Amino acid sequence: MDARVLQVLVAPDSFKGSLDPLAVARGLADGWRRARPLDEIRLIPLADGGEGTLEAIKATGGDWIELPVHARDPLGRPLRATFLRRGEQGIVEMASASGLSRLAVDERDAMAASTFGTGQVLAAAIGLGVRQVVIGLGGSATTDGGSGLLTALGARFLDEQGKDLPSGGGALERLAAVELDELSPVLGEVHLTVASDVTNSLLGERGAAATYGPQKGADEEQVARLDANLAHYADILERAAGRVVRDESGSGAAGGTTAGLLAIADRFASFQVRPGVDVVMELTGFDEALAASDLVLTGEGRVDDQTSFGKTAMGVARRARATGVACICFGGGVLPEGIAALAEQGAVVVPITERPMSLEEAMSAGAAPLTRAAERAARLVTMLGAGR
Amino acid sequence: MDARVLQVLVAPDSFKGSLDPLAVARGLADGWRRARPLDEIRLIPLADGGEGTLEAIKATGGDWIELPVHARDPLGRPLRATFLRRGEQGIVEMASASGLSRLAVDERDAMAASTFGTGQVLAAAIGLGVRQVVIGLGGSATTDGGSGLLTALGARFLDEQGKDLPSGGGALERLAAVELDELSPVLGEVHLTVASDVTNSLLGERGAAATYGPQKGADEEQVARLDANLAHYADILERAAGRVVRDESGSGAAGGTTAGLLAIADRFASFQVRPGVDVVMELTGFDEALAASDLVLTGEGRVDDQTSFGKTAMGVARRARATGVACICFGGGVLPEGIAALAEQGAVVVPITERPMSLEEAMSAGAAPLTRAAERAARLVTMLGAGR
Repeated sequence: MDARVLQVLVAPDSFKGSLDPLAVARGLADGWRRARPLDEIRLIPLADGGEGTLEAIKATGGDWIELPVHARDPLGRPLRATFLRRGEQGIVEMASASGLSRLAVDERDAMAASTFGTGQVLAAAIGLGVRQVVIGLGGSATTDGGSGLLTALGARFLDEQGKDLPSGGGALERLAAVELDELSPVLGEVHLTVASDVTNSLLGERGAAATYGPQKGADEEQVARLDANLAHYADILERAAGRVVRDESGSGAAGGTTAGLLAIADRFASFQVRPGVDVVMELTGFDEALAASDLVLTGEGRVDDQTSFGKTAMGVARRARATGVACICFGGGVLPEGIAALAEQGAVVVPITERPMSLEEAMSAGAAPLTRAAERAARLVTMLGAGR
Repeated sequence: MDARVLQVLVAPDSFKGSLDPLAVARGLADGWRRARPLDEIRLIPLADGGEGTLEAIKATGGDWIELPVHARDPLGRPLRATFLRRGEQGIVEMASASGLSRLAVDERDAMAASTFGTGQVLAAAIGLGVRQVVIGLGGSATTDGGSGLLTALGARFLDEQGKDLPSGGGALERLAAVELDELSPVLGEVHLTVASDVTNSLLGERGAAATYGPQKGADEEQVARLDANLAHYADILERAAGRVVRDESGSGAAGGTTAGLLAIADRFASFQVRPGVDVVMELTGFDEALAASDLVLTGEGRVDDQTSFGKTAMGVARRARATGVACICFGGGVLPEGIAALAEQGAVVVPITERPMSLEEAMSAGAAPLTRAAERAARLVTMLGAGR
């Protein structure tokens, strides 16, 4: 029997389409315990700012706050919206009010979808006295440049006749003026953090419309129109704000929502855009937990060549290396590029696939293969006397 | 850097249909070395007595001996046959002269196929002075009860007219008498070991014809006829030999070849039937190598509920446990039952599959995933300071 008790931190992302971060964390912890029942295990499920971020943060503490009135979904329908309150922090998830997951596949409408609902949640949190706000981007149904969100905070988007434009990126072609005078002065007391892993800028080939428009229901012609509309929107918004935002890295996130927020950045007490996983780690006390650990287990559904671009596992691996903590990354589907990228950070990638099978079969297998993979890793780590 | 040099024994079976035992062993060793370049690695590829057994044994030493004359393939066509000479031992592989792999799929003929060629190789080895002979069964195309093999050693199988029967299990229905008087007296100097993992007896539902006939080309009616012919053959052979063999475990191996050999067992200086992997391990010095090792890596294409029935990985795991050596078993396709069976022996099963994929894709991936799996395992074993 191993005499040495290891401090094990379990900090995975979701296996998208299969298991949320907490389910992954529990599966890994179960497997590890089977092999090493005496180790002290702590769960900090992670997320990248997109869908599931609030659930992941909630697992380590916080309270759900339901809005006193209905908010609007991406198509303007009423919605019971919530945010997470955790100490001084209020955390808003864009996917929650303005997410693709709010729409049936045949309801997706990239021209009409609006970020107004997310702005309502943000305004409600501020109205309830929250002064440190995190907004997690990702999973949005929208390509409106954040105009809906800004509208909910008091901005006005007017046509040639001085009338308020309808919602959505499609209407922006008729934008004639932006008024920012009515933006809530309370923003000046608010410290806003935008959590986003996207590095795309607002316009062009790698812009908001071209990159994410198709998955939001835009056809080729609509992508071109949305891109032109966002360029026109940027012209007018930047002039009104006195600040160029279109070329900033990440300005294309969530259909250009970051561009809209960047335009009014100086209205806030402080404003920053940070990688989602960094924000989630900070909120959940990841670094302190890591420093107290011998080993961290992380994981993602796919560990591929994209892993190196700011995703969760890479973030965990980098911090583990910096802290001198061993790191194992479990992956549902693993490519050699992903193994190599994480190996550069000293992490070992462990695939959970046990035999040739279809993606459907793998996605429906639940947590059992993950649990067995963690048990296997724990036994290998122990095999030649480590951790004793 | 790890200061401790591990003694690592690499002793896998083939990944059937994909990689032979030596290729598996090399792939595992390559991966292990990437993570732990200073370890001392020794390769002992294993096999179960069937096809590929000679190649596996040859990897640790021995010389190919080509027969001075042509032998016969299962259908009586001339064949360049070889056996392996290793010290005092001569090792004959049944699959080599009488194997299914000698025939095109449309040439398979369970009624006609004969073990005569294997008997010729055996006779040739004895004729060249070999007195310790191992015959590896498995992969045969035949269901003749070993009558062809015995014929090559001097036995006669006669019809009502006293004429020699034609080759193959189909002709046995006309068997009227067996003469064993002309069996070579030199057999009395020969120590024969039959290497076989089969436990099926000669006749009936789990007999040679019913179990293996279909894969040798027999239809349902031919299976019934072959089973009846083998029963008739046993009646006459057992009477001639003065020994009942039909019910002995394993007598149904290689189309009843073991039954035929058992009938003349007392003609040899010594005679034994042993599990193939045990024989291969003995020939290759596995136990001595294991005793000098810190860790053994084994592997099989499939690690499933069959693994517990005498296959290679289980044999390695049992010996490793008995010797107090750590054991890792790599598997191309792994089922929870296989993981559990090997875990009972203290071995850790590591699947090499890295993501959902088809069986075809997995089978054609070569050694690269195996190599990465070994590297991964070596890094996990090392991770928390083991082996240092």
